[in-house]
Amino acid sequence: MPLVEGRKLRKITALGGGVGASRLLLGLYEVSAPARLTIIVNTGDDIELHGLKISPDLDIVTYTLAGIVDPAKGWGIRGETFHALKRLAGYGRANWFNLGDRDLATHIHRTALLAEGKTLAEAVELIRTALGVRARILPMSNDPVPTIIESNKGQLHFQEYLVKRRAEPVVQGIRFEGVGAAHPAPGVLEAIREASRIIICPSNPLISIGPILAVSGVREQLRVRKTHVFAVCPIVAGKSLKGPSDKMLVQLGHEPTALGVAKLYADFTGTFVIDPADKAQAVAISALGMKVAVLPTVMKTRAQKDKLARALLNL
Amino acid sequence: MPLVEGRKLRKITALGGGVGASRLLLGLYEVSAPARLTIIVNTGDDIELHGLKISPDLDIVTYTLAGIVDPAKGWGIRGETFHALKRLAGYGRANWFNLGDRDLATHIHRTALLAEGKTLAEAVELIRTALGVRARILPMSNDPVPTIIESNKGQLHFQEYLVKRRAEPVVQGIRFEGVGAAHPAPGVLEAIREASRIIICPSNPLISIGPILAVSGVREQLRVRKTHVFAVCPIVAGKSLKGPSDKMLVQLGHEPTALGVAKLYADFTGTFVIDPADKAQAVAISALGMKVAVLPTVMKTRAQKDKLARALLNL
Repeated sequence: MPLVEGRKLRKITALGGGVGASRLLLGLYEVSAPARLTIIVNTGDDIELHGLKISPDLDIVTYTLAGIVDPAKGWGIRGETFHALKRLAGYGRANWFNLGDRDLATHIHRTALLAEGKTLAEAVELIRTALGVRARILPMSNDPVPTIIESNKGQLHFQEYLVKRRAEPVVQGIRFEGVGAAHPAPGVLEAIREASRIIICPSNPLISIGPILAVSGVREQLRVRKTHVFAVCPIVAGKSLKGPSDKMLVQLGHEPTALGVAKLYADFTGTFVIDPADKAQAVAISALGMKVAVLPTVMKTRAQKDKLARALLNL
Repeated sequence: MPLVEGRKLRKITALGGGVGASRLLLGLYEVSAPARLTIIVNTGDDIELHGLKISPDLDIVTYTLAGIVDPAKGWGIRGETFHALKRLAGYGRANWFNLGDRDLATHIHRTALLAEGKTLAEAVELIRTALGVRARILPMSNDPVPTIIESNKGQLHFQEYLVKRRAEPVVQGIRFEGVGAAHPAPGVLEAIREASRIIICPSNPLISIGPILAVSGVREQLRVRKTHVFAVCPIVAGKSLKGPSDKMLVQLGHEPTALGVAKLYADFTGTFVIDPADKAQAVAISALGMKVAVLPTVMKTRAQKDKLARALLNL
């Protein structure tokens, strides 16, 4: 893939969560200079299971850029087997969270690194370089900030809400536990400060982008760089591109529309990117004090991912 | 398989290590009443790798009696895959110790149970019952007692000596680290005290049976029950039935013969069982104060295992 002309030496920083973000990230990785790309990833959905420290969003991004992600699911490793998980279930352990055999190696390795005293960021760096990923991947924080869903079924870890209960409970609130004491990982604020273009990926605004924004200093730093911030709307024609964003927005009193997301991002976003399907909302979004760019944001093919990435860098 | 006549209600206790022991244990499991069988297993070769607590001998015995052991290797699980280990190696982690995907589930489960505050004996009990093993399996101790090999290549954990360095270093000494402070696991001394027949399996006398004997009170309790103790010699015609017993015996100044092993066991063994190949040593062994029984001890087929087990129970 050709590099975007004249963009080679510009630093690009992207913020994102899991599968939704990884599609655009793959495009950015392809069309920009990976070594100038920094990705700040949500860790609010990290969870400990069977004594293993699992970072689903970090792994989705890393596996995607490494070219080993399962293309059908968008997470996990291509050609994966689940022999260990089946045996874990035989031992009576919870098996609602899918852990493939190859994927388990990542969790075992990360857990061992953390036990040896490495930070999460150091573990991420070792994992992504071992997998040959040339872009820098940063966790939003080295401190655990689990996303807790307050629901009509009680308080649930985000993964319990999403995976175990298939996003069926009614969401009444969202808490990022411990975020008050959490520090951004080393390099996070600098990456926002130094980038010529900051891209908010089309991830769930509440539980993928929301936790990153909640980490001390991140939202403030984005506000300072507002004119350089480009947010890609994860809602198209009133539906999530991926996952339960639309439903969660409604349950928490937000509009499940591009305009609804725009309101959540207006304070720190310079350019809000919507799909042609939502063109009619452009005026209302502009009124929030942002530029509006209309670009095809539905990415199913590799060509669509690259095209959106290239368009974003050329805006 | 028919039960041994009249033995149904007698308690049998066996002491053993890994592959060598498991052949005879399978025979005992088949021909006796499993619920009356207690197996005390060496944990000196337990090792922590990648943050996981691995108990090779316990797993060999458990997998064997569960009918899931790899029959060709004598350890690991039948039809096993090694996808996780390959990825761990890709992350730069040591891969000299074979960890299959299904086998990993056992280590993950055990490590999680221990982290939750369970003892090793409690973890073993949960694992063997989940796998449907009806005999009781006890670790020699809940306390870690790693076997350290003092060699011409320095001090090595037993697994490093055996697996990583293929038993090539010259053994100069053996230490059971921390054995002075280690307690026998609950039930170990009782199982020796209450059994009508105590069987020392044909395991390496130095590093499989040796660690068990070194745990506080075990050797003393065996001496008290001497007439009930039947030891099956792991050396036949000057060669180990399995593993490096013969070489280690020589390097530590013992004779690599049935008589050499008999000398190590004479204080607590009532009947020493040798193969017909070693019949010529019977008189010398008797002179150590033990009865000698001559039985075919080479077990390749299931029939040979059952036959030796039945013969042992009928002696």
